[in-house]
Amino acid sequence: MAERGNVSIAETLTALLDEKKYPTIRDILITMNPADVAGIFEDIEDSRIPLMFRLLPKEQAAETFVEMDPEFQELLIKGFSDSELKEVLDELYVDDAVDIVEEMPANVVRRILATADPEMRRDINGILRYPEDSAGSIMTTEYVSLRPAMTVAEAILRIRRTGIDKETIYTCYVTKNRYLEGVLTVRDLLLCTDDDTLISDIMETNVISVNTHTDQEEVAQMFKKYDFLALPVVDMDGRMVGIVTFDDAMDVIEEETTEDIEIMGGMSPSEKTYIHANPFDLFKQRIPWLMLLMVSATFTGLIINNFESALAAQVVLTAFIPMLMDTGGNSGSQSSVTIIRALSLGEVEFRDLPAIIWKEVRTAFLCGLALSCVCFAKIMLIDRLLLGNTQVTWIVALVVCMAIAVTVLVAKIIGCTLPMLAKKAGFDPAVMASPFITTIVDALSLVVYFGIAKALLFG
Amino acid sequence: MAERGNVSIAETLTALLDEKKYPTIRDILITMNPADVAGIFEDIEDSRIPLMFRLLPKEQAAETFVEMDPEFQELLIKGFSDSELKEVLDELYVDDAVDIVEEMPANVVRRILATADPEMRRDINGILRYPEDSAGSIMTTEYVSLRPAMTVAEAILRIRRTGIDKETIYTCYVTKNRYLEGVLTVRDLLLCTDDDTLISDIMETNVISVNTHTDQEEVAQMFKKYDFLALPVVDMDGRMVGIVTFDDAMDVIEEETTEDIEIMGGMSPSEKTYIHANPFDLFKQRIPWLMLLMVSATFTGLIINNFESALAAQVVLTAFIPMLMDTGGNSGSQSSVTIIRALSLGEVEFRDLPAIIWKEVRTAFLCGLALSCVCFAKIMLIDRLLLGNTQVTWIVALVVCMAIAVTVLVAKIIGCTLPMLAKKAGFDPAVMASPFITTIVDALSLVVYFGIAKALLFG
Repeated sequence: MAERGNVSIAETLTALLDEKKYPTIRDILITMNPADVAGIFEDIEDSRIPLMFRLLPKEQAAETFVEMDPEFQELLIKGFSDSELKEVLDELYVDDAVDIVEEMPANVVRRILATADPEMRRDINGILRYPEDSAGSIMTTEYVSLRPAMTVAEAILRIRRTGIDKETIYTCYVTKNRYLEGVLTVRDLLLCTDDDTLISDIMETNVISVNTHTDQEEVAQMFKKYDFLALPVVDMDGRMVGIVTFDDAMDVIEEETTEDIEIMGGMSPSEKTYIHANPFDLFKQRIPWLMLLMVSATFTGLIINNFESALAAQVVLTAFIPMLMDTGGNSGSQSSVTIIRALSLGEVEFRDLPAIIWKEVRTAFLCGLALSCVCFAKIMLIDRLLLGNTQVTWIVALVVCMAIAVTVLVAKIIGCTLPMLAKKAGFDPAVMASPFITTIVDALSLVVYFGIAKALLFG
Repeated sequence: MAERGNVSIAETLTALLDEKKYPTIRDILITMNPADVAGIFEDIEDSRIPLMFRLLPKEQAAETFVEMDPEFQELLIKGFSDSELKEVLDELYVDDAVDIVEEMPANVVRRILATADPEMRRDINGILRYPEDSAGSIMTTEYVSLRPAMTVAEAILRIRRTGIDKETIYTCYVTKNRYLEGVLTVRDLLLCTDDDTLISDIMETNVISVNTHTDQEEVAQMFKKYDFLALPVVDMDGRMVGIVTFDDAMDVIEEETTEDIEIMGGMSPSEKTYIHANPFDLFKQRIPWLMLLMVSATFTGLIINNFESALAAQVVLTAFIPMLMDTGGNSGSQSSVTIIRALSLGEVEFRDLPAIIWKEVRTAFLCGLALSCVCFAKIMLIDRLLLGNTQVTWIVALVVCMAIAVTVLVAKIIGCTLPMLAKKAGFDPAVMASPFITTIVDALSLVVYFGIAKALLFG
């Protein structure tokens, strides 16, 4: 990874800074991609970053600033003079400025808004009003708009004149009284052989757009489906207000996937990356589920208590509890994880539930059969013959194997059903992943196990 | 989801097809995005798809074909005449053609290669030679190349003349004797005010490129880092051979994430989506881990057997086994899932291991302390006072709570260490997720529990 190779570059730059060899530093930095420069800066001692930053040319400085982590952005802003801050802000795209404003403490936000030019301030405030995680909150207001009556030559001229401030020039939007009438790519324009063709004749009129309130996850899924570079965002009245670009969609996908994975792993989602989280952050993220699941495990304890006298008579049954619980938990989490992923990719919907249950039942039958057979053989050969545990009779083996088969079936049905019900009820299906399923399946597997044992051993 | 709304459109189209209203069908389809048309076709009865497909205009037909699932592509190819197949192939980009070839059975592949024009056949064969999941295998060979000595005006002219066959025209590559000398965007060209500027004067010469053998996951991470539209691919000698575009990178990210999630959920990764997998596919995907984990749970059984006489004397200890195992398993999977995600996002590396362990130890201390205190209160108040279980003494509660604290510590250390060791050893760290960690932590938590019980209760 390039980011890791940077450490020695960071050291070199620090040494050069101490020797005040500023032109050399500038020559080195100027050849680099802003994302790499940001990575290097984050490896440098905090007090030296502002000085190093000032050596960057204006445009590269702004692009590097955008790529840095919020804590370093805050550090830099606090060190900026007002004119320096304004210089950086002027180079930013509105959506990047909004991202920064959202991460900064209130006093820094006030200073940013006071320093930004009036147009940008209005745009930032406009975007900040949209609900969190909506298309409006991730869009940018800087896009190329064309008129239907323009010719191809006029359109190209307009792009060449105004494109410098736009986040993307490659997708252009054809508007009339701010209503979105069509869409056109620079590719269409450049590959059009007749310069006098009217935009209205070559634009695509079936425009796929999203609303300012569309959830960002849905927006990201549309990018994956259609491979667009940008998607237009319209307000409730159908007027065009901005665009979302593919790089923002990629960030949303990464963010939402990490959130899903955290929730599936039994944690509250966090905005902090692991490397920036301190133990107390991690504690807050992890303890709620641990606590809830520990307390809910009281039920499994109660079930065992209920069966205590029988267990005291047949202690051998206890030895199979962990295996049974683990097999049930694993079976259930396989199904729930599969369904949660399929839901988040939009592959399945609630109306597919009966078909899914039927598929899981057949899968559970195959898995249960295979596991029971192997388990029976294992118990009789290893536990009884090899280890000479005479308490392990063939009836005990039968009880364990039947319990496995039933547990796998129950676990798979619960594993596929709960995430779908959660989604239907408006919750995040990822909540219904392994830790939760495990706890439910644990209790059920014990009930099944003791029920079968009672019937066959003590019945 | 648009895809779901299609069902009724599919029915309408089927009805229109029965009435032979072909122009109407064509008028409806022509307004739609290829991804949507593909979705609709997949909801239509198999026998009608080829007829419906023939109604599409040439270009839309090819784009729709690319968006369809392999099984439908195969169905269509088998129904095509040679000239129909050639017509579709001629419209495809090379990387899409390669994707299709990789999914088809050998006889269909032979027919595709025999029908494709010689240039495409050579390109397909070239790409097929690269290792699976390498940059070479996902690249396309159709990109815009410019010469350093061209002027801006000449470059724009060249793009307008040759761009029609290129997957993207927005990033252009400046080559000399096939060596990559620089990179330039259409934006740079259009926004350049002087048409006589030389390409060599405005091109970016610090080109970030990947090698044909670079792993596709690494390629995808570079797209996320740099927000590129396309990345150039060079061979071992540094000669440019193709480009990877952002939409392919998004597909790779989705594919790799699904694979990670499947492995973390204790399954073998599968190329089939859930909806296309039959129960036997799912069985094959799930049984290996279930079997392995069931058999490895033998150890937990052995540990319990070892402690059987003590358990028979103090059956009350049995009731806390599930709670202890679950808490340990959950704690461990929280850490492992966090680390696996951080590894796959490139946030942490092996050299961070000591820092990570130290962070996890402090987190475990906080979690263990909170859990033990609540657990002690719960046992004394609920189990002893409320439920009147007099076997539950304060020493038993102390044993359970100490076991929890130690188990959480051990689970978190194992949970963060194993994925990093797996990565270091060249395995997929996702293998070290919940199911695996749970099995190890189960055994350890029992050893800890019984060890502490022995010391305090029977010592």
